[in-house]
Amino acid sequence: MPPEPGPCIAVVGATGAVGREVLTLLSARGLAPHRVRALASARSAGTAIPYGDTLLPVVELTADAFRGCAVAIFAADAQTARDFAPGAVDAGCLVVDNSSAFRLHPEVPLVVPEVNGELIGRRGRLIANPNCTTIILLTALEPLRRAFGVRAIDVATYQAVSGAGLAAIDELHDQTRDALHPETARNGSPNGEPKPRVFAEPCAFNIFSHDSAVDPDSGVNGEERKVIDEARKIWNQPDLRVTPTCVRVPVVRAHTEAITVTLDTPATEAAVRGALAGGAGIEIVDDRAANSFPTPRKATERDPVLVGRIRPDPGERPDEHGRRRRWCLIACGDQLRKGAALNAIQIAEHAGVLQPGPRQAAGAQTLTAAV
Amino acid sequence: MPPEPGPCIAVVGATGAVGREVLTLLSARGLAPHRVRALASARSAGTAIPYGDTLLPVVELTADAFRGCAVAIFAADAQTARDFAPGAVDAGCLVVDNSSAFRLHPEVPLVVPEVNGELIGRRGRLIANPNCTTIILLTALEPLRRAFGVRAIDVATYQAVSGAGLAAIDELHDQTRDALHPETARNGSPNGEPKPRVFAEPCAFNIFSHDSAVDPDSGVNGEERKVIDEARKIWNQPDLRVTPTCVRVPVVRAHTEAITVTLDTPATEAAVRGALAGGAGIEIVDDRAANSFPTPRKATERDPVLVGRIRPDPGERPDEHGRRRRWCLIACGDQLRKGAALNAIQIAEHAGVLQPGPRQAAGAQTLTAAV
Repeated sequence: MPPEPGPCIAVVGATGAVGREVLTLLSARGLAPHRVRALASARSAGTAIPYGDTLLPVVELTADAFRGCAVAIFAADAQTARDFAPGAVDAGCLVVDNSSAFRLHPEVPLVVPEVNGELIGRRGRLIANPNCTTIILLTALEPLRRAFGVRAIDVATYQAVSGAGLAAIDELHDQTRDALHPETARNGSPNGEPKPRVFAEPCAFNIFSHDSAVDPDSGVNGEERKVIDEARKIWNQPDLRVTPTCVRVPVVRAHTEAITVTLDTPATEAAVRGALAGGAGIEIVDDRAANSFPTPRKATERDPVLVGRIRPDPGERPDEHGRRRRWCLIACGDQLRKGAALNAIQIAEHAGVLQPGPRQAAGAQTLTAAV
Repeated sequence: MPPEPGPCIAVVGATGAVGREVLTLLSARGLAPHRVRALASARSAGTAIPYGDTLLPVVELTADAFRGCAVAIFAADAQTARDFAPGAVDAGCLVVDNSSAFRLHPEVPLVVPEVNGELIGRRGRLIANPNCTTIILLTALEPLRRAFGVRAIDVATYQAVSGAGLAAIDELHDQTRDALHPETARNGSPNGEPKPRVFAEPCAFNIFSHDSAVDPDSGVNGEERKVIDEARKIWNQPDLRVTPTCVRVPVVRAHTEAITVTLDTPATEAAVRGALAGGAGIEIVDDRAANSFPTPRKATERDPVLVGRIRPDPGERPDEHGRRRRWCLIACGDQLRKGAALNAIQIAEHAGVLQPGPRQAAGAQTLTAAV
């Protein structure tokens, strides 16, 4: 049988945490290996990277690397995106960039398909993938915005270390091993304190305010700033009040968010639950009797954002119809999957350059011809 | 030299996580071993428990066990408190009860000494120690309440497993060891999932909604209900809006709380920082440039509640004088120490039955005669 014809999909930063997840999802969708181009820095070029049951050669990222590709998913840093994304567009690719480089650019759509997928294809061939925390937050809240409007969001996060890359997973495991077996500890400084490599604070059995830089004037850190600015842009609500506190926890994968949302129009609990149950990309995990709610373990390597602990703010009295404005919930999503790789693939599907497949099914998946 | 004279202090539940912490603090204060009576259930009676460089015999808790004691610190469950605290009062003790048994009783003062220490001694000989999460929250916010008034509290917690007792620490360590070394895993079920003993959810590299029972109607869990009811009672503000989400994290010791507080009177950042810096029982850890803020590691085995990430809600515009109502901060406190054992000892000090000593100094400490 001749190899399946059709254009390639380029994955920039294929050896990183998000790049590997993109490969995992493409492989699970049955995309033939010869149609996936794994691009990375010169340092990784020449190695090979797992793709389903086979290996893909890692090719150096250069301006010429996008020839023949219909889609380029950038899973690299902002500088790499600034350097190479415009060229990929010129080479004919639909570019989905997972970095922060273009997210707030007024000409670039910032897209969560369940929220504002209608922007895809309207303007330009470069689409920005939002920050993982923003994607999970807005996927969870979109049904409430559509049904009742949203005026304000208070959110405290419990973010997995892998959001800081693969090296952070090693750091968590190494420091945890040392803490459990101090007699053979290898990652500490002479005084016995763990010697952080990725994070400034020890991460084993510890939590800490998010590792992004803190603005000296506002006190807001980089992650919180992304959530605020991106939520306002995606929902097209420049006056949305967003009050985030972003925190790392010793979890390998999947971010959790404790959310209180203030609705425009008060709603009953039945109406809130009804809206969430019908929400795209959401799975309800909410068993009060069993005390079973979303957790990172339940969300890991899953497509949907898990939503639970749905309850009214106990501090607000209902109106005479039993309706309230403020609702609390916990959302949990795999930040490497829906928070990054899956969202990017969904964008390519919406754009018509990758055929939509059922979520989490390993069915055949083909690239359509480049538009 | 004859043994130091004077009445005893009884510690009920001496073998538990909080009881051990009470012993640690009494020993560090130089209280002679013969003046400490370690009480526990019949199961533990006859064993011995560390007290400084020596061991204390563990004595069975009976109605007669309080004879000659000036103070009884109950670090046991609510049923034990209901069964034995009234008798301890009748035996002449000042009773400080760490359980939830009497906290909401209208005749029983519920005390955080930095907040409402003036209630001690006014009424009765039984004083309730608040829930650990409440103590840390109100210690952090009390300076703001005094200076500006507080109208509402939004709080998401990151609670250490040891709040569920010593067995929960073993569970976290065992499950973590298994996760790192699956080839020698001993605490899993046949399908490889960890087999929880204390918590319904796996706790290694995972987080989960607090393990207390969830009210089927309101959706509020037991821990959150305590925070709401106790904060209102301690501050004597029945209409205070408290919106908590309580969550467990894989941390051995010290609870963290991401707080947004709404003030009655708007304030500038300088005024907010000034108030917090002068707060009793608080230590400010707030270095934006170094991204150094409160963490459980920094708070573990420390007396003060650490407060940092002090910043205005980025969603609120300041008034013409630069003042705002809503302020965000992170508080972190050792829930076995200030959240339980230390708070109880402070109450005994305020009552005059234990001489106040400098915090965290190992100076001599004597019981005054029973009042």
